[in-house]
Amino acid sequence: MGESHLIGLDYGSESARGVLIAVRSGAVVATHTYTYTHGVMSSAVPDGTTMPSGWALQDASDYEEAAAAILGALGRGRTVRGIGLGVTASSPLPAMGDGTPLSRPHPGMPHAYVKLWKHAAAQVQADRISARGGDHLADVGGRLSANSLLAKAAEMAEEAPILWAEAERFIEAGDWLAWRLTSRETRSAAFAAYKAGWRAGFGYPADIVPGLDAKLGEVHPVGTAAGALTPAWRERTGIGGEAVVAVPVIDSHTVVPATGAVEGGTLVAALGTSAVYLLLDDVGRPLPTGIEGRTLGGVVPGLWCHEAGQAAFGDVLGWFVRAFPRGAGVEDSFANYDAAAAALAPGEAGVVALDWWNGNRVPHGDARLSGLLAGMTLRTTAVDLYRALLESLCFGARAVVDRFTDGGLPVERVVMTSGLSLASPLLMQIMADVLGRDVAVPRRAQLTAVGGAIHAAVSCGVARDYGEAARRFGAWNTILYRPDPAAGARYDTLYRAYRTLGDAPATRDAMHVLRAATAHQIV
Amino acid sequence: MGESHLIGLDYGSESARGVLIAVRSGAVVATHTYTYTHGVMSSAVPDGTTMPSGWALQDASDYEEAAAAILGALGRGRTVRGIGLGVTASSPLPAMGDGTPLSRPHPGMPHAYVKLWKHAAAQVQADRISARGGDHLADVGGRLSANSLLAKAAEMAEEAPILWAEAERFIEAGDWLAWRLTSRETRSAAFAAYKAGWRAGFGYPADIVPGLDAKLGEVHPVGTAAGALTPAWRERTGIGGEAVVAVPVIDSHTVVPATGAVEGGTLVAALGTSAVYLLLDDVGRPLPTGIEGRTLGGVVPGLWCHEAGQAAFGDVLGWFVRAFPRGAGVEDSFANYDAAAAALAPGEAGVVALDWWNGNRVPHGDARLSGLLAGMTLRTTAVDLYRALLESLCFGARAVVDRFTDGGLPVERVVMTSGLSLASPLLMQIMADVLGRDVAVPRRAQLTAVGGAIHAAVSCGVARDYGEAARRFGAWNTILYRPDPAAGARYDTLYRAYRTLGDAPATRDAMHVLRAATAHQIV
Repeated sequence: MGESHLIGLDYGSESARGVLIAVRSGAVVATHTYTYTHGVMSSAVPDGTTMPSGWALQDASDYEEAAAAILGALGRGRTVRGIGLGVTASSPLPAMGDGTPLSRPHPGMPHAYVKLWKHAAAQVQADRISARGGDHLADVGGRLSANSLLAKAAEMAEEAPILWAEAERFIEAGDWLAWRLTSRETRSAAFAAYKAGWRAGFGYPADIVPGLDAKLGEVHPVGTAAGALTPAWRERTGIGGEAVVAVPVIDSHTVVPATGAVEGGTLVAALGTSAVYLLLDDVGRPLPTGIEGRTLGGVVPGLWCHEAGQAAFGDVLGWFVRAFPRGAGVEDSFANYDAAAAALAPGEAGVVALDWWNGNRVPHGDARLSGLLAGMTLRTTAVDLYRALLESLCFGARAVVDRFTDGGLPVERVVMTSGLSLASPLLMQIMADVLGRDVAVPRRAQLTAVGGAIHAAVSCGVARDYGEAARRFGAWNTILYRPDPAAGARYDTLYRAYRTLGDAPATRDAMHVLRAATAHQIV
Repeated sequence: MGESHLIGLDYGSESARGVLIAVRSGAVVATHTYTYTHGVMSSAVPDGTTMPSGWALQDASDYEEAAAAILGALGRGRTVRGIGLGVTASSPLPAMGDGTPLSRPHPGMPHAYVKLWKHAAAQVQADRISARGGDHLADVGGRLSANSLLAKAAEMAEEAPILWAEAERFIEAGDWLAWRLTSRETRSAAFAAYKAGWRAGFGYPADIVPGLDAKLGEVHPVGTAAGALTPAWRERTGIGGEAVVAVPVIDSHTVVPATGAVEGGTLVAALGTSAVYLLLDDVGRPLPTGIEGRTLGGVVPGLWCHEAGQAAFGDVLGWFVRAFPRGAGVEDSFANYDAAAAALAPGEAGVVALDWWNGNRVPHGDARLSGLLAGMTLRTTAVDLYRALLESLCFGARAVVDRFTDGGLPVERVVMTSGLSLASPLLMQIMADVLGRDVAVPRRAQLTAVGGAIHAAVSCGVARDYGEAARRFGAWNTILYRPDPAAGARYDTLYRAYRTLGDAPATRDAMHVLRAATAHQIV
């Protein structure tokens, strides 16, 4: 019997990445990255029609081209048991009954394209739906995000009613892609629960958006098969074997089993340009105040997963080194600032930041909030400010962890992944010191795509369950950062200042005034 | 009859400057600057004995050397009618009965030197004297500054009791210099009122510091003669004529009549590394909340003068361009930032600062406060922050003006002087827009020294009164910045954010925590 494989795909905003994993050894034997032709369209669609600010579209054909390129590169001539997908969400598109995206017959209509997760123009609709209330809001803290499928559907129904009527399906990009690959239309519980208010036993909320209910589809649990790769796709990619396509998962959640986290009490953070915190729990406890949402079975079957985040994380550091360069390029500046900041003692400069450069998600859920720096004296240096930003990003993480534990959710183990977790040991040591907890950082790269392969392994039966799949195919090897109590005591003091500033209504009032002043300016 | 002259001297922290004014034309015909040999001694006295942080001493012999150099350069062979002095305060020194500074017999004892105005180590004594209360605190808002002569005397009495007993006189540097120049010991009402709690009709407050009362001297009003230049000084400098030396004035106050401000309702600001605001008033109204102090007759005879300030002004901009250089040197960086900031619209970036990099004087009187920046987004640029600092320095000025007017003091005219008022037309236009008032900037340089010459003119009888002296010898020519109502409306909004942040107790609580954390770090 020849070697058989799993393929995990990670569909991000600008590109898709794939890993090929050997079933027997569990090793990643090949990777491939494909950059989308159209990328994120924020000002115009391909025919030149422009959109106002806040828009972010994608062309669904990019996803198929990426699948063809990556599956071909990784799978041609190989026996592939399963294919798993992590895809951004909520990134829905309107389609015809046969799956054709409406952007094909209507290339000049922005509403016909995929509305990417970060498309922000549906805030008005999100607020209106939130104001109406309803049971479906219980697990999102009563407040629907502009990111949600419901808000994006409402926006299209309102602003392009004829196109909306023409759309027979309104479907997440991940579900649409699985449909294309398998010829079978399904809806992943991951997307439905997190982005469309669906709950097991209750179904979708009815009558939120006129006409929407008929454009949705049957929900399938995570860890099951959406279908098998079609003959046409087998031919296009040269893939052999059963090639079961798993029900897709939200890209940022795919990493969870890849880190080995398949039990309650594990907090998994992905520290990228923004930060996402996912806390698994065995019990359906009430949503803690300030935490953004929770769903059952969207990440790992049978487990609740609570979600929280920082709207900017690496972006804050990127902002600083671009605004105040110290070296030939961004990489150089990062390295220089990081080295200089490592020479400072914890909290030495007495400067603290509110890490809200892109608004605040937890606990305020308020995009109008902004960054703040306090404590500067005439002796404060640029490096002091950089180090204060590192520390304050960790205070933001601690604010999330504290809201979880204050709300009665146990946090027993902390795992942190993504770019910054491996790029800055200084940041990760500060994180451990600020949290006063061990922080484990998996050494394996491409963990989101690896997580896709784990979903594939379960859905095609290569592994009995997520625990086995995570042990065989997840990150085996972690770096452990242990907290230094002396540093922790200093950070406790600075964190008090962080919370005093961040919790004070006056701080947010002032930021609202500043944001309104800028908005006025733009008009 | 040959041309006769006036000489004005401006004794600052690092150097002294002099102007020679022709009595007939009123023109400045020569200037001279002398940099002190010892400058500010903040870590050790000349024999190597070291001091803790917070100390700032001077060697009184520097003042005599400066007088010899400047009076010689400007006055040799000339007929000089009068000499006027503006000198930093409170900068007291202990001296023997003949005027010999105690630092001559005791060069290794820091307490034997001049304690410069910014010597901050007497805060403990200032707080203790404030806590005891007393009528003498009424005009300083109940809160004695560490800057005051009383606090510095208490510090010496406590920490160097034997030296304190040996000191027959405890005297301001300005009074000491006038004594040396004239052989007549006097005490200026300017220093006595602002720095030693003296009030006309009441005298000095008694029993504040053990032994102090006997070391003080008789108070003389501003605008009178301390005496005539001694024969020894005439020989040393080559000066002819009556050469009446006026009772000295605080350097930062000397500028007031030089700007033409000799009537109630005029606010004179000196915008240097820090900013001082002096508001003249005809009536003895209660001290407005938050305003630091007021005295009668210390600046112009018969007028009340209220004082307020920003602890850092130009220093905040200097901090920014040094921390984030944008050019070959500091001057280059200033020019580049200023030019780029001028291209932005008022409040365009929606960023505001609390200009407390060196603590806050008005209204909090709290050195533990620190700088703050709020409103940053991922699109904020370095130039946005620089412009926000310019705007926020003006918000700090408006906060002072508002406290004056809220407290019932009329502000009818605003005059701004010193380095930044002539260096940055952008800053002065923002100032006019933020205040919503005309701002007049005198074109004449060396206004503090010119103010000294005006005091000389009155005290030697060249002018009948300050009104005449100001018209003849003060600034004739001003640049007038007129407020733009549209910009003003935008700034009104940002100023609301400034006040919201600055007035919130949480902001100050957080800064106290940060300062305490840093102090802990240093120990």
